[in-house]
Amino acid sequence: MKTALSALAQRTAPPPISWLMKTALARPKLISLAAGFTDNATLPVASSRRLLNDILRSPKTGQPALQYGTTTGEKKLRQLTATHLQKLDGGHDRAHSPERVIITGGSQQLLYMTLEALCDAGDIVLVEDPTYFVFLSILQSRGIRARGVKLERDGIDLAHLEKLLERLKKSGELRRVKALYLVTYFQNPTGATTTLAKKRAALKLLKKYERAAGHPLYMLEDAAYRELAFGRDAALRRQSAQRADPTPPTALTLPGARDRVIYAGTYSKPFATGVRVGFGILPEPVYTAVLRIKGNHDFGTANLLQHLLARAMATGAYDRQVVTAQKNYARKAAVMKQAMAKHFPANVEIWESGGGLYFWARLPKGVSAGVKSKVFQTALKNDVLYVPGELCYAEDSFRHKPDNEMRISFGSASEKNIREGIKRLGKVLKKFCDLSGC
Amino acid sequence: MKTALSALAQRTAPPPISWLMKTALARPKLISLAAGFTDNATLPVASSRRLLNDILRSPKTGQPALQYGTTTGEKKLRQLTATHLQKLDGGHDRAHSPERVIITGGSQQLLYMTLEALCDAGDIVLVEDPTYFVFLSILQSRGIRARGVKLERDGIDLAHLEKLLERLKKSGELRRVKALYLVTYFQNPTGATTTLAKKRAALKLLKKYERAAGHPLYMLEDAAYRELAFGRDAALRRQSAQRADPTPPTALTLPGARDRVIYAGTYSKPFATGVRVGFGILPEPVYTAVLRIKGNHDFGTANLLQHLLARAMATGAYDRQVVTAQKNYARKAAVMKQAMAKHFPANVEIWESGGGLYFWARLPKGVSAGVKSKVFQTALKNDVLYVPGELCYAEDSFRHKPDNEMRISFGSASEKNIREGIKRLGKVLKKFCDLSGC
Repeated sequence: MKTALSALAQRTAPPPISWLMKTALARPKLISLAAGFTDNATLPVASSRRLLNDILRSPKTGQPALQYGTTTGEKKLRQLTATHLQKLDGGHDRAHSPERVIITGGSQQLLYMTLEALCDAGDIVLVEDPTYFVFLSILQSRGIRARGVKLERDGIDLAHLEKLLERLKKSGELRRVKALYLVTYFQNPTGATTTLAKKRAALKLLKKYERAAGHPLYMLEDAAYRELAFGRDAALRRQSAQRADPTPPTALTLPGARDRVIYAGTYSKPFATGVRVGFGILPEPVYTAVLRIKGNHDFGTANLLQHLLARAMATGAYDRQVVTAQKNYARKAAVMKQAMAKHFPANVEIWESGGGLYFWARLPKGVSAGVKSKVFQTALKNDVLYVPGELCYAEDSFRHKPDNEMRISFGSASEKNIREGIKRLGKVLKKFCDLSGC
Repeated sequence: MKTALSALAQRTAPPPISWLMKTALARPKLISLAAGFTDNATLPVASSRRLLNDILRSPKTGQPALQYGTTTGEKKLRQLTATHLQKLDGGHDRAHSPERVIITGGSQQLLYMTLEALCDAGDIVLVEDPTYFVFLSILQSRGIRARGVKLERDGIDLAHLEKLLERLKKSGELRRVKALYLVTYFQNPTGATTTLAKKRAALKLLKKYERAAGHPLYMLEDAAYRELAFGRDAALRRQSAQRADPTPPTALTLPGARDRVIYAGTYSKPFATGVRVGFGILPEPVYTAVLRIKGNHDFGTANLLQHLLARAMATGAYDRQVVTAQKNYARKAAVMKQAMAKHFPANVEIWESGGGLYFWARLPKGVSAGVKSKVFQTALKNDVLYVPGELCYAEDSFRHKPDNEMRISFGSASEKNIREGIKRLGKVLKKFCDLSGC
């Protein structure tokens, strides 16, 4: 008897990271620098308790929090979201209307629904090379093709984007292209932040090729890590006044963005990952399509979480938590940087980031850090885990998939474990870099 | 320029109920007997506060609740779920293993993902006629065809199911059939509860036609309203000892169920709809497919909600809340029943239920209660709203879609508003039943 499963289900691969997680659980002494988990110690336990206490103190505020809401999300949270983004973006208010905001179950749900709204199987989405691997999993599951655009430290390689669009135009495939997906702040996995100039140029390029595509080409801006900038609190901001702004404005602020930019944001990472609330800002007709799709998914994100976030934002608890998280990650990143300087061979290239949860390390050419590599297996034997960079590259037959990179996270490990983990990893790297003669 | 939207997005209609809701908001004096909202006054505000206080009192219990969890859901909640269902089902433990449980964002998300896992566009799902209208929206959005099976007061018409399967076999369409969807307890919209005998017979019939289908035919049992039985608390149970059990065991307890029954349950309706936590119990290979799909949707339901529910169940707060809700809905149902007896014309047929949130009323043939009908429009003018029954019927060209029915909810309206709303509705019904000569 054949399977009853759909084509989608048959395409859907196990998440590449799931066996990493299982591996981690099986080795109690293992230090995981792989997980994208946030820091346990700085989670807002006390402030969440106070906020929830306040909400549930009276039936007047408690009952609405425990009742169904609307599919778009709580009005107050949508307003606070619009205001918050306006503030972060320096007051470009037209693009940030609460009417364009939808509250979702983390930004992940927004990404999923946006792809449902835009893409049929066989369609193409342009992605950074490398990019967020769960996004690649969605594409793979839904039969959407990914085409990689080279990523530089300040965003995608614009010349490569143009070459790619031109090639797709010539091959007649441009009509299958629907969007360009960019993780614009402290990117997962590389930590790269896209400059506003690059966003502007990319948006222009998309616009230029729309006629040949025959339909709008959207820019999907994923800003999941935006608020985890190391330099947002006052003291750090003073120090970095001479440096470039660590968080440039979103693509929403650009001319022509209003109808073409889809913005995915989240409160989970900056506030608490157990409080899964994200949001999208979308132009029509994508907004309405996603809203209807969400009606079928769950007709609205859990109201209790939305009320918690709204109160956190309204009372300032959210901002305080963001500063706490930023300071903490800045410190942990510094600890990791120092440990890498001490323990990593000099020929390992490190991409340093101004925020987020990750360092990106590139081994010398010819030294594989992939899942089946000696480096990865030896690291595992020595009880230290990282994410092989190859998992973050789309299946794209137009280029060779690099396998000499690694994503190293300082998100969940303690400072002590960061030091020890990097020491273990450094030992492994030294061994295999020496062997390869570098 | 054409749209960039996917075929799915272009198919996805606005939810039929959304304009009803908007209408309700625009008329401040309107009494809505339409919404599937639960009762505000009995929501567990105080107990949720206590439970969250306990969870967030210490970092040890607070931090895991505010951190990411796993895609399957919290181990403890999955164990409690298995035990809880075993208890409700009278101890059939083999089918209720925690390893087969997945925690979801309400049972709605489970329904959505299950259809993603099983159905391609063009596939067929058999549904009760009438059935839960959001389920129909998912089918419509995903291009899945629905075929209605006549619903009787104790479940589907088995002879009709067999006739339908036979007809599909003859037309060669059986290979497109993937599942039979049943809302088995206090069904939305009719309040009907399916007997265990009917579940058994339906499962047998599905099995019988599998060879011709060439693949498994699943029974998708949606038990969203199961715990809202009016007679579960001790006093009521004694009174009703002579009556048939208001909640028969699930299809999971039947022979042959283990590989063929997909069970969708929820904690949102019995506990708090603002705490959106549902669950599924699924056989392989559907379990793995749904788990992978959830990895792409959101890689796990918000942990804070799961910890809240787990603690509510472990401490007995959940059971107490269920009894409170049951007593409350039993009382409100009685108030509505009494009001209908007083105000409705005698020729309106009422389906009474042993639980849930709805009455189902059938007007005499020829009197339409549909969206465009005089009955509905006049009711609206008189500030009372119900759900036109026609919205709960699938698009199925093989039968005439009835339009003389209405779903009337006692879920969210106060007792006073139930009395007044039914009085208003009765006045309208009397007018139009008289006009039609009944």
